[in-house]
Amino acid sequence: MRLVTYRATVEAGARLGALVDDLVVDLARFGAVAAVPFPSSMLEFIDLGPQAVATATKLLAECQGVFPIGTTVPLANVKLLAPIPRPRKNIFGIGLNYTEHVAESAKSLDTSAELPRQPVIFSKPPTTVIGPGEPIVHNKAITQQLDWEIELAAIIGTTAKGARREDALRHVFGYTVLIDMSARDCRRAGQWIYSKGQDSFAPMGPVVVTADEIPDPQTLDLWLTVNGVEKQRSNTAFMLFKVDELIADISQGITLEPGDIIATGTPAGVGAGMDPQEWVWPGDVIVGGVDGIGTLRHPIVAAA
Amino acid sequence: MRLVTYRATVEAGARLGALVDDLVVDLARFGAVAAVPFPSSMLEFIDLGPQAVATATKLLAECQGVFPIGTTVPLANVKLLAPIPRPRKNIFGIGLNYTEHVAESAKSLDTSAELPRQPVIFSKPPTTVIGPGEPIVHNKAITQQLDWEIELAAIIGTTAKGARREDALRHVFGYTVLIDMSARDCRRAGQWIYSKGQDSFAPMGPVVVTADEIPDPQTLDLWLTVNGVEKQRSNTAFMLFKVDELIADISQGITLEPGDIIATGTPAGVGAGMDPQEWVWPGDVIVGGVDGIGTLRHPIVAAA
Repeated sequence: MRLVTYRATVEAGARLGALVDDLVVDLARFGAVAAVPFPSSMLEFIDLGPQAVATATKLLAECQGVFPIGTTVPLANVKLLAPIPRPRKNIFGIGLNYTEHVAESAKSLDTSAELPRQPVIFSKPPTTVIGPGEPIVHNKAITQQLDWEIELAAIIGTTAKGARREDALRHVFGYTVLIDMSARDCRRAGQWIYSKGQDSFAPMGPVVVTADEIPDPQTLDLWLTVNGVEKQRSNTAFMLFKVDELIADISQGITLEPGDIIATGTPAGVGAGMDPQEWVWPGDVIVGGVDGIGTLRHPIVAAA
Repeated sequence: MRLVTYRATVEAGARLGALVDDLVVDLARFGAVAAVPFPSSMLEFIDLGPQAVATATKLLAECQGVFPIGTTVPLANVKLLAPIPRPRKNIFGIGLNYTEHVAESAKSLDTSAELPRQPVIFSKPPTTVIGPGEPIVHNKAITQQLDWEIELAAIIGTTAKGARREDALRHVFGYTVLIDMSARDCRRAGQWIYSKGQDSFAPMGPVVVTADEIPDPQTLDLWLTVNGVEKQRSNTAFMLFKVDELIADISQGITLEPGDIIATGTPAGVGAGMDPQEWVWPGDVIVGGVDGIGTLRHPIVAAA
């Protein structure tokens, strides 16, 4: 399934939908007709566990594109929100997880040129999350070095504690796109949370593709443009630590829970790695995507 | 007020209480008698805003120690939990925030001997939180350097965004004690979340003292012992960045929300700074406190 969190009107509350071609099927309403209770939020749906995904997938397929009256709305008529507008904890971010990005970071930032021997983990608070199209806030009072990082994000579906690598992907609910905005001049004593954790620094979406549709997450092209100029293009095949390794590693010490989000790191092509360095400013537009999942488009705006 | 989160019996759900001498007043039941609706959880009470604190304080005082039947239980008969058993996002931690701790860290860890010019921020996931008396888990598969850090924690009461220092303390709901357990050998490329973010690494409690009872949070003695031997003793007067500065600084870029927790850093005396270095192991017992708030006592146990 391709799942979205959306509003049907400006005033309406957030709903959970399945995207079928150009239609958004309201899962709670669809479930009501089918006498299968589905919730109206992504996190509650994740909490139902893998069986709910299987059931919803089967019921939607049985409709063969013809859905009960009152359960659908055209995609063009809705506003998509971040798939998980309010995570239950900070997003787990992974740094230095593509070889060439390690090299460019060592040239221009304060990181080592050696490949990390273990995943480098940081976090982004829930207040960083914005939905498709929403503005990224440039706060010139605290940064003159706002940078982009396109990433594949994995969303955890079931609790993982000490997961083995060979079982780790079973804990994934699905995948989405996340742009890990980074104010390079806001790193402090090497810690990245203030650099990567500012309000609006985690554009996310536009959809979650459930894990059954992405059996191998290490085969996906990802790319990013600034004002139409391509800056990043790579493939998740080049991750140093694959999604299954990240889950196994983190869950050795930190229990991963349903709804947790892991932003898996960015490939080369960030602004800090350019010569001369490049940053984004109010008026610029970032477009980035992971092929097979979707595309995000975000303007940069000055802080009020 | 001195507020606690507690269970009256093993099976009972968590409740919010006010500690009056040796009695726990169940705030929701007390409120029901007084025809003032109070919730049964700390986060919901925080969400009600400062007026709820004032109202509850006044109503409790009017009882002069004689509370309505069915609204109290002796402290000795309850199990105290972490005041906020499940934070809504990662705890904000502050590193290198006492002068002598900066010096000892520079000797033994990979941090700079220079005093930080801005607060050094990291985070601890909600899964780190444990309540008074609960075991701290030593996972020998991933750490041989488990260390202690006693800290004052400030709990945010009202949303702070771009707060000015002179207004910042108005955003504080109250204060509690937090032990920032740190597996020193789990730092990665300088990032601390895996070192400080493992399950059980944030013992918290035993009470929250509301901010009206601690008008100046920079006057509090704090201390910690391991197996009865004093390792840390200092006063919050020696913080480099005071609580009001931390709130003003963080909220410039990251909106602080009701229920957010800021662990304000630890003074000298951690195990990494000893010569030879000292670590805790299964069987050891850590006791630490902030005078005027309370004391935490936690055994170290081996991971299952």
